[in-house]
Amino acid sequence: MIQAIDELVSALSRLPTIGAKSAQRLVFHMLESPQEELNTLSSRIRDLRTRIVTCRQCFNYSEGELCPICSSTTRDQSLICVVEKPSDVFAMEKPGRYRGVYHILGGVLSPINGITADKLRIAQLRVRIETQAVKELIIGLGSSAEAETTSLYLARLFSRAGLRLTRLARGLPAGAELEYVDPVTLNQALNERIDIRYSDAAE
Amino acid sequence: MIQAIDELVSALSRLPTIGAKSAQRLVFHMLESPQEELNTLSSRIRDLRTRIVTCRQCFNYSEGELCPICSSTTRDQSLICVVEKPSDVFAMEKPGRYRGVYHILGGVLSPINGITADKLRIAQLRVRIETQAVKELIIGLGSSAEAETTSLYLARLFSRAGLRLTRLARGLPAGAELEYVDPVTLNQALNERIDIRYSDAAE
Repeated sequence: MIQAIDELVSALSRLPTIGAKSAQRLVFHMLESPQEELNTLSSRIRDLRTRIVTCRQCFNYSEGELCPICSSTTRDQSLICVVEKPSDVFAMEKPGRYRGVYHILGGVLSPINGITADKLRIAQLRVRIETQAVKELIIGLGSSAEAETTSLYLARLFSRAGLRLTRLARGLPAGAELEYVDPVTLNQALNERIDIRYSDAAE
Repeated sequence: MIQAIDELVSALSRLPTIGAKSAQRLVFHMLESPQEELNTLSSRIRDLRTRIVTCRQCFNYSEGELCPICSSTTRDQSLICVVEKPSDVFAMEKPGRYRGVYHILGGVLSPINGITADKLRIAQLRVRIETQAVKELIIGLGSSAEAETTSLYLARLFSRAGLRLTRLARGLPAGAELEYVDPVTLNQALNERIDIRYSDAAE
């Protein structure tokens, strides 16, 4: 009805996680916000993609040629965690415990959707493994069928003496109540059960 | 960690309905969006407030001196619905049945928060009632204690021969199951019960 409002509502509604109702609420909020705040938000959206490039080593988003993780002197460059996409790095970094570096694969194998090995950054991973003193490759892909296939594919491809190949553990999520855990997860938690060590218990 | 991303995440998180997690998802989405789309969104946000003014008659948001509702020739100018804020007009317009015009009060009376009658657009409403041939004033405020006080205040202030004063009905919301309706609403629905007419039943 009022074009400037309708246009912004429709532009916002097209984004993920924002429904028509939230979009409308956002616009009414913006109408009462200081122009300065709108300018800041506006220019950050406009400039986002020009400020961001791809790290030439791990292919994560970066503002420089090397991302902050690859260029950090405190990170262990001999430990690479292979993930599907940049948002996975953000998730992995949240606990703040991982001290290695990453490699963004750019997807998982899915021949039915035309995603074959040459579409992923596997050749680039091979170069890193062959030219850098990589000691361990943690395959940090998800647990979908396609991700599991990709994990196995990578594990076979890079299996060699001197390179430890691991994958993330599967089991109960934190805070889970057994009765609500799905059978597949419960079965994995049972299969991958580990011995209780006194040192763990004492922590 | 990556400034351009962090800055936009934090700007988006400050908006209502967008949490930290949604903000991050939005930014990752934008990183994969065409620059053209980001430019459109960016300029709509930047230009929103400059394109929008206040309608000089009803005080709703408008792109011209008079909003589309006030300037419409098919709207009944003798019927004014008083609402608290512009978003209420959007809600009232959604069903598409109301044929009158509006008056945005700009709030409800709340002396404890310093919102006295002179802070609201009551004088402007009086001018409209006195200079235009207004036949009915629908008080379309909410049902909070402050909104009810304001409704009564307006009803007393504008009570005169020839001006019908009404308020929106209170009762069961659409699709409600009786057992889940709160007691206050149920009591109002009982107090404001209306006779079943055969014409309604036949519809």
